[in-house]
This record gives sequence, C-alpha cells and structure tokens, in this order.
Amino acid sequence: MLRLKVLIVGRSKEAWIDEGVAEYSRRMASTLQLVTEWVRDDAQLLQQVVKEAQVCCLHPQGRLVSSEQFAKQLSQLFEAGGSRLTMVIGGAEGLPTSILEGCYPLISLSPMTFTHQMCRLLLAEQVYRSTEIWRGSPYHK
Amino acid sequence: MLRLKVLIVGRSKEAWIDEGVAEYSRRMASTLQLVTEWVRDDAQLLQQVVKEAQVCCLHPQGRLVSSEQFAKQLSQLFEAGGSRLTMVIGGAEGLPTSILEGCYPLISLSPMTFTHQMCRLLLAEQVYRSTEIWRGSPYHK
Repeated sequence: MLRLKVLIVGRSKEAWIDEGVAEYSRRMASTLQLVTEWVRDDAQLLQQVVKEAQVCCLHPQGRLVSSEQFAKQLSQLFEAGGSRLTMVIGGAEGLPTSILEGCYPLISLSPMTFTHQMCRLLLAEQVYRSTEIWRGSPYHK
Repeated sequence: MLRLKVLIVGRSKEAWIDEGVAEYSRRMASTLQLVTEWVRDDAQLLQQVVKEAQVCCLHPQGRLVSSEQFAKQLSQLFEAGGSRLTMVIGGAEGLPTSILEGCYPLISLSPMTFTHQMCRLLLAEQVYRSTEIWRGSPYHK
C-alpha cells in the first residue's frame, strides 16, 4: 500500500473541495492511502518537512508535466521513499524560501494560478489518475 | 454585464463540482453572468456552436496561458463579442474534428489531463480570477 501525505498550510475552507478530495481518496483506497495534514504556518511547515523521508513540492515555478509524466515521477518518488511520499502545498503566500532552496523536486500543475485549496483538489485527481495510468484503465486515455 | 455561456457535452455528475461552480458564479455575479448549457452529444454541440457569435474552446492542444494572459484574452473576446462569449468543453472523447478545424481560439488549462467535468470547475475559477485581475483585487497576486 502506497501512502501519500499532503502537507498543506492553512485549514480546510470549502466543503465541496473536501468532498472532491474524499471522492478521489475513496476511489484509490485499495492502492494508495491519501492523508492530508494541515499545518498552521510556514514555521510549522518547515518543522514538519525536515522530518519527512521523501518530499516533493507543488510550486508555480516547478516543472510543467503531462499526466503521464506525473504518473511516472510519482512512481519513482514512491520507489525512492519506500512507498511513502510527502507532497507539500504552500499557503496563500506560496512556499517559504528555505523550502524552495532545498533540493526537493518542484512540480507545477498549470501555468495558471489556482488557490492552494484548489491545488489540493487538482493534486488528488492527478494522483488518482496516476493510479489508473499505472494499471492501464480507460479512465485515462 | 458580461455573459459567458459554457457549452459542454454530457450532464452534471458530481454535486461538489456543481457547488464549486455555483460558488464562483455567485462571487462574480455583479460583473459576469456564467451560464452552463449541457448538450447531449457532438451533433448537438455542433448545431449549437454555429449559432454562437463568439466562441473559444478548451482543448489539451490549445495554448497554455498564465492567469494574467487568460484574463487579457477573455477581455478581448468579450470586447469582440459585444460582452457575450461562449466557451466550449468537449465530452470524454474531446472536441469533434469539425470544431477543431474551425477558426476558434483554443486554450489549454494545463499540460495535465483533467476530466471535462473538472475543466468546468477550473474554468469557473479562472473566469472569477480574471474578474478579480481586471479590478486589481488581492485575490490574485
């Protein structure tokens, strides 16, 4: 079982985003466990990030990838992390410099800007899509 | 008042996506009226598209733009269409060839693939973001 922790600054705001994330989590529950961990602020985020074994960050200046490329990267990151991975989403102000200066891979979901809450939903869909790409299902074609 | 019609193949499936779209629609209701028109299939989509004055399509092979560029394009399209614009989202199989061969501008939301239902939500957020960019609010920074 793969375990993906989404580490995010702030708190859940929109119920419909929670519902969307829960739906994708349910759909991939037999393959991948998606857990969301909210932190209060950048200081708490930093404290937590250094404890994580395998980290990848979502960032507007990150690499733009297709869903197939994302699925491949995700698979590689899980392999390197022994089936564990932490994906970091910054707050409204973005990620703190000390995290950006770390050697974590940076991925961008789109050249467009989305709220960090919406990024949580997009990430959940893309992670679910990755599990479907891995098993060659018709969800992704 | 600007009027944006989203022409989309299929039918509403996820209640949480409807809620998200409704929330962004409400937030920009004083500036822009967002209406969603569902069509049954590609044939009905084609019938409808030729009736529309100003059309723009969402398509994976479309141009990737930043939110600022999108806001600018949206403003230009509304100006050309006399405050009316129709944005087209294809079905699970994408847009029919006859629409792709038309001279409509094509925009892509991301190099990643999303369901066309999710595209509806992303589009609503980006349109709302555009109205905030136009008025220079802190929503987009």
